[in-house]
Amino acid sequence: MSFQIQPTKVIHHLHDRTQSLMHIDLLITNTTILPFPDTEQVIAKGFVAITGTLISTVGPMSACPPTADATVISGAGQLVMPGLVNGHCHAPMTLFRGLADDLDLHTWLQTHIFPAEARQVNPEMVYWCSKLAAAEMLLSGTTTVADGYFLEDEVARACVETGIRCVAAQAVLDFPAPGVPDPAQNIKVAARFLEHWQGRDPLITPGIFAHSAYTCSNTTLQQAKELTRYHQAPLFIHVAETRDEGRHIAEPQASTPIGHLQALHLLDPDTICVHCTWATDSDLVDLTAHGCAVVTCPQSNAKLASGRMPLSAMLQQRVRLALGTDSAASNNSLDIFREMDFAAKVHKVTPCDPAAAPAGTLLHMATAGGAEALGLQNGHGTLAPGAPADLILLDLQQPHTQPFHGPRLLVYSQAGSSVRTVIVNGRIVVYDRQLRTIDLDATCDRVRTLAAG
Amino acid sequence: MSFQIQPTKVIHHLHDRTQSLMHIDLLITNTTILPFPDTEQVIAKGFVAITGTLISTVGPMSACPPTADATVISGAGQLVMPGLVNGHCHAPMTLFRGLADDLDLHTWLQTHIFPAEARQVNPEMVYWCSKLAAAEMLLSGTTTVADGYFLEDEVARACVETGIRCVAAQAVLDFPAPGVPDPAQNIKVAARFLEHWQGRDPLITPGIFAHSAYTCSNTTLQQAKELTRYHQAPLFIHVAETRDEGRHIAEPQASTPIGHLQALHLLDPDTICVHCTWATDSDLVDLTAHGCAVVTCPQSNAKLASGRMPLSAMLQQRVRLALGTDSAASNNSLDIFREMDFAAKVHKVTPCDPAAAPAGTLLHMATAGGAEALGLQNGHGTLAPGAPADLILLDLQQPHTQPFHGPRLLVYSQAGSSVRTVIVNGRIVVYDRQLRTIDLDATCDRVRTLAAG
Ligand SMILES: [Zn+2]
Ligand SMILES: [Zn+2]
Repeated sequence: MSFQIQPTKVIHHLHDRTQSLMHIDLLITNTTILPFPDTEQVIAKGFVAITGTLISTVGPMSACPPTADATVISGAGQLVMPGLVNGHCHAPMTLFRGLADDLDLHTWLQTHIFPAEARQVNPEMVYWCSKLAAAEMLLSGTTTVADGYFLEDEVARACVETGIRCVAAQAVLDFPAPGVPDPAQNIKVAARFLEHWQGRDPLITPGIFAHSAYTCSNTTLQQAKELTRYHQAPLFIHVAETRDEGRHIAEPQASTPIGHLQALHLLDPDTICVHCTWATDSDLVDLTAHGCAVVTCPQSNAKLASGRMPLSAMLQQRVRLALGTDSAASNNSLDIFREMDFAAKVHKVTPCDPAAAPAGTLLHMATAGGAEALGLQNGHGTLAPGAPADLILLDLQQPHTQPFHGPRLLVYSQAGSSVRTVIVNGRIVVYDRQLRTIDLDATCDRVRTLAAG
Repeated sequence: MSFQIQPTKVIHHLHDRTQSLMHIDLLITNTTILPFPDTEQVIAKGFVAITGTLISTVGPMSACPPTADATVISGAGQLVMPGLVNGHCHAPMTLFRGLADDLDLHTWLQTHIFPAEARQVNPEMVYWCSKLAAAEMLLSGTTTVADGYFLEDEVARACVETGIRCVAAQAVLDFPAPGVPDPAQNIKVAARFLEHWQGRDPLITPGIFAHSAYTCSNTTLQQAKELTRYHQAPLFIHVAETRDEGRHIAEPQASTPIGHLQALHLLDPDTICVHCTWATDSDLVDLTAHGCAVVTCPQSNAKLASGRMPLSAMLQQRVRLALGTDSAASNNSLDIFREMDFAAKVHKVTPCDPAAAPAGTLLHMATAGGAEALGLQNGHGTLAPGAPADLILLDLQQPHTQPFHGPRLLVYSQAGSSVRTVIVNGRIVVYDRQLRTIDLDATCDRVRTLAAG
């Protein structure tokens, strides 16, 4: 009764005939497999083969290929699934975790976060605090993060070093900012960032993060969009986060913040609208018509009391959706397992609808759906052969994971702490809960010193 | 800037003059201490001394007494706080974790849980699944749980063996139930339970769990209350969980379920009303006037889409409040750290009030406040000298706990997985994340077998 066993079959790589000859670099054996995207099917005892940076074969152990010189990881007692996708983060803000809580967005930003940023943000801080964030994310099962901050070069560098995949977006806004003391240079700095990182590292996809319509002039927003269009790069923007956001836009072009972006011709499939907490029905029509992606950060929106996104309406309109933690200062955790659980519950309780946010929907948003929303292609966020080998192994032998009745356990009972092994782009970055890429103790020490500074 | 250091002073035991001669059995050294109940004060490097089953002294390391033959636990890099109190659980239902989700309470109960219970609940199941629950709770920092189920003798036995403190309440309802095939015997069975467990074991406080006004006749409810009054034992009851609960009460004595209990003279300080999701203003007046305790289970109420309790109004009325997980089948975790985090956020987001549920309020509900609501005395849930030695040590060296700006970290960033050591009634039950009391692997195996059966 505990779960459905998949009929014995091997999911071959597209090039079926070369499969038997295919070299395997890394092989995970004897593991429970949820063959995402079809999360209802379970292989009770299977294998995943990785060739280079890609998944090459997935199947039951009975079909496991011979492994002459592959690295073999036993997945016994564990479950393998695609690594999680964090659709919105400001990695360096781990420094401000718990600095101020139980405050509204405006007070929190103006009285606490902006002054702390003015005092403490510099390349060293961004680099070390991003390494801490990357470590926290990898150790809780996130293999891809979309980040936006100042001095984003340092975020990207920290992510490469720690081994997490990152859609790294340089912040643009019309105030003096760390790394861009003269706001007139913001687009130029962002352009340099894109040029530097495009095609440079397989883990990094560069983009632009136009902070918001209340911190960017209409011209700045349009220049940012023009720049990302030219580079075919993603443009992130905070929009409709709080109820009264529209009142803070200097030259509004429409009655809602999302309408404002639409009037400025900013909406298209490469524009990723973050929050959309107060999206109206007509905003939803705009978002759908232009194929925009939306990232929702339910815990941050709840903690800052900003509001609850209209998830059911978004799902009905088939908006492309990702799930994000926002920063460690407004969450205050970067664990996407926690985010899935919270999202599934908060969207049930207010409408009193237990089917409003099913576990499977959240799992999709946190894996393949989220990856697609961020513009990542080729089966990213799935276990399909040919997909990037971004995988996690979860311990199924802990008290809170007993018994295993099926994949909904991953949403309602699991936590990032159950992650034992993490593979990103074919590389083992966490093994048996040990981060293999950076010196974690030294990183924690450095962040503590920066916080005390 | 990271936290406030307490002036060097020792909090002595009441018997100040005998303190220097006091024998110390267990000493925790070099640890960060939040001297609950005053959670804003922090001792950066302190000690906690335990004598027998009680906390004897707490202070900075400079005042640490000599320790001839005490067991010493180094708390370096860790934080000590009172063990958490789970105010409402049905421990054996770990068997049904993830069996059915994304359903409303009625469908979930009638179509899935009640049939599974009819099929699978027996003394063996209750014993093993309660051991699993106790293990999960201890390993996530809960040292006291209030439980209510059938065959509660087996729950109590499992808790004693696993080493968790339990307010164990035998279920009473007017249907044939496991252990009570003839409902006419329900009060008699409950009386035997009380008589057996009163004064039997320091970890067990026996009580009665009258399931609800829609499963118990008015006579049964009154007999249950009479019995607990006679024994000065707590009476738990599910009440006002869902919006339409009143419609299912056979002979309603008032317009609301809580009013119904009031009309039947069930409300007093030993009656613990569980849920109260739909408590009206006049219900709140009743609860306050009679000094009742209320246990809220926000994640269970959210997952079953039952609703959100009026926490702000309860706080304003100074209702005695505890926080509970409800069962692993409707949560689906028994981690009170998660429950605090969820509660703090869900109560902010709908009223759009970031101050609605401050971290400190949740910490109080999950420790001293919760213990008081359950009727536990003598400083239970605090670090005061003379209080029961129910303590936990949390790892502060993990990425998600960096940096430490203060106790709100415990609500917004911490997770049960950070618990390293757990002491209940002066006994070390978890050390370095290893449960020392029972064979955890064997327990997990047994539950898996029962689930597959
Ligand atoms: Zn953000
Ligand atoms: Zn209950």
